[in-house]
Amino acid sequence: MGPATASAAQADTAYRLGQAIAREGWVLLTGGRDVGVMDAASRGAKAANGLTIGILPSESIHGLSSGVDIPVLSGIGSARNNINVLSSQVVIACGMGAGTASEVALALKAKRPVILLEVSQIAQEFFQTLSDQVWCCSDVESAIRQVHQLINTVKN
Amino acid sequence: MGPATASAAQADTAYRLGQAIAREGWVLLTGGRDVGVMDAASRGAKAANGLTIGILPSESIHGLSSGVDIPVLSGIGSARNNINVLSSQVVIACGMGAGTASEVALALKAKRPVILLEVSQIAQEFFQTLSDQVWCCSDVESAIRQVHQLINTVKN
Amino acid sequence: MGPATASAAQADTAYRLGQAIAREGWVLLTGGRDVGVMDAASRGAKAANGLTIGILPSESIHGLSSGVDIPVLSGIGSARNNINVLSSQVVIACGMGAGTASEVALALKAKRPVILLEVSQIAQEFFQTLSDQVWCCSDVESAIRQVHQLINTVKN
Amino acid sequence: MGPATASAAQADTAYRLGQAIAREGWVLLTGGRDVGVMDAASRGAKAANGLTIGILPSESIHGLSSGVDIPVLSGIGSARNNINVLSSQVVIACGMGAGTASEVALALKAKRPVILLEVSQIAQEFFQTLSDQVWCCSDVESAIRQVHQLINTVKN
Repeated sequence: MGPATASAAQADTAYRLGQAIAREGWVLLTGGRDVGVMDAASRGAKAANGLTIGILPSESIHGLSSGVDIPVLSGIGSARNNINVLSSQVVIACGMGAGTASEVALALKAKRPVILLEVSQIAQEFFQTLSDQVWCCSDVESAIRQVHQLINTVKN
Repeated sequence: MGPATASAAQADTAYRLGQAIAREGWVLLTGGRDVGVMDAASRGAKAANGLTIGILPSESIHGLSSGVDIPVLSGIGSARNNINVLSSQVVIACGMGAGTASEVALALKAKRPVILLEVSQIAQEFFQTLSDQVWCCSDVESAIRQVHQLINTVKN
Repeated sequence: MGPATASAAQADTAYRLGQAIAREGWVLLTGGRDVGVMDAASRGAKAANGLTIGILPSESIHGLSSGVDIPVLSGIGSARNNINVLSSQVVIACGMGAGTASEVALALKAKRPVILLEVSQIAQEFFQTLSDQVWCCSDVESAIRQVHQLINTVKN
Repeated sequence: MGPATASAAQADTAYRLGQAIAREGWVLLTGGRDVGVMDAASRGAKAANGLTIGILPSESIHGLSSGVDIPVLSGIGSARNNINVLSSQVVIACGMGAGTASEVALALKAKRPVILLEVSQIAQEFFQTLSDQVWCCSDVESAIRQVHQLINTVKN
């Protein structure tokens, strides 16, 4: 998850994150649009031969990221943010905006663990006041290691 | 799409329909639960090595069909019926109940073509009063042929 | 509930139905838009000093019926049809189209009683195959009497 | 908007806020449940003869606040948080939790102004990094004054 308007650094991180997720054999789920972090992550995962799902806010396929294999046309606007997080075993937020903040908050409400990447100190501190299911990582590699730990914890 | 409480004949048709869809290389999308037509179609598609998506009504993965590869946890109850049909290029209803009727109606509202299988004469007649995008088929083979025609029409 | 594109007869019936609902002291809930049956019913209820709620499909208030006191901006498109029927103690369909058919079906799925007015014989027969909670009425007065019976049944 | 598990101070503020909203002649919209801030605000508004709407997450009326006049049964779980904020001209958050944070974020995403009451310094700072439509108030009276300013700005 991440902003539709991403900085070059956020888009680069999201692309490499998508690649890393695909290499782990995990399915990548994003908001599906052809902009910002969701687009970069989806294209990164495709470049590494991953399987990608995109939950679009719209009723039409217009504006779909070229990196999405399976578009879900929710037709429910920003309410689809809750579907994004419910359907994810681990939520990774890369960058922060109002939409991304809603996804992090909805994830914590639904007891999904959240990893924060490319996020300000104040955002990290705020979300940690809401839940103990928030992890802050400084790069893609440590985020992937954190996902492994979270998945293993659930399994054990 | 089809009832959660399916007759043996409907479940058998749904299973063979799932197989046929997988053999065409198409992705199967259902309501994802482990009952009735959605379960039979998903298991049929998996038996033929297809890719299957299930849009669950619930917030949890409990009750997921064993034939679903990719569960989407919508958390929006029967409102997810609209997502099912928006996300489908062609909707096939196998059998009829209140939930299935809502999906056929929502599909026609959203201009998605609908194929009816294992459905009463009166259901066929009713839905044909609502739209000219309704096709009635008597078996799996003719349903698959109809999907080809609909997809080719869109392409041309 | 009823089609956005209503005949003059359907709009007239809807207007008188809205008036009758308001005179009973009941709250009228519609889809909220400024077209067809929902608009006529809302204006009729307002003319009789009723309280009216409109559940809009959109994220904005644009296209709101002038008869709606309290707009709810759902932003979930046709998925709001499920909210319309869940929030109603009794659903009255006046006229029929794809959207209205989805509301009748979703109501029956959710065990809400449905009264059909200004609806074809075939629609009546079809919905009665889905549930025993369907009543067919020939005019506004008999529809109102039917609502009283349904409410009393629930109370007793 | 506010947490389902509210402190005594938050519940007291919410009750007085509901009273003040009703005295202004405004309609109060909350999440509708019989717990925390939404319950206290609804009961406060009723005590002052206001009109109150509650957008429940559930498909049933179970758990409705006694202060709600008009329940809307959304059946879409936490996705209804987006309906809460889309349907509000001004959003007031009293207290903070994961659900409330999602409502504030969704409100800012949808360009609805947000007033924060009984919220930590870090929450205030975080949301102000997301939007310039965030106002922090220290008591009910200043929150009501802020609503007046926001409504007048829209009118002018």
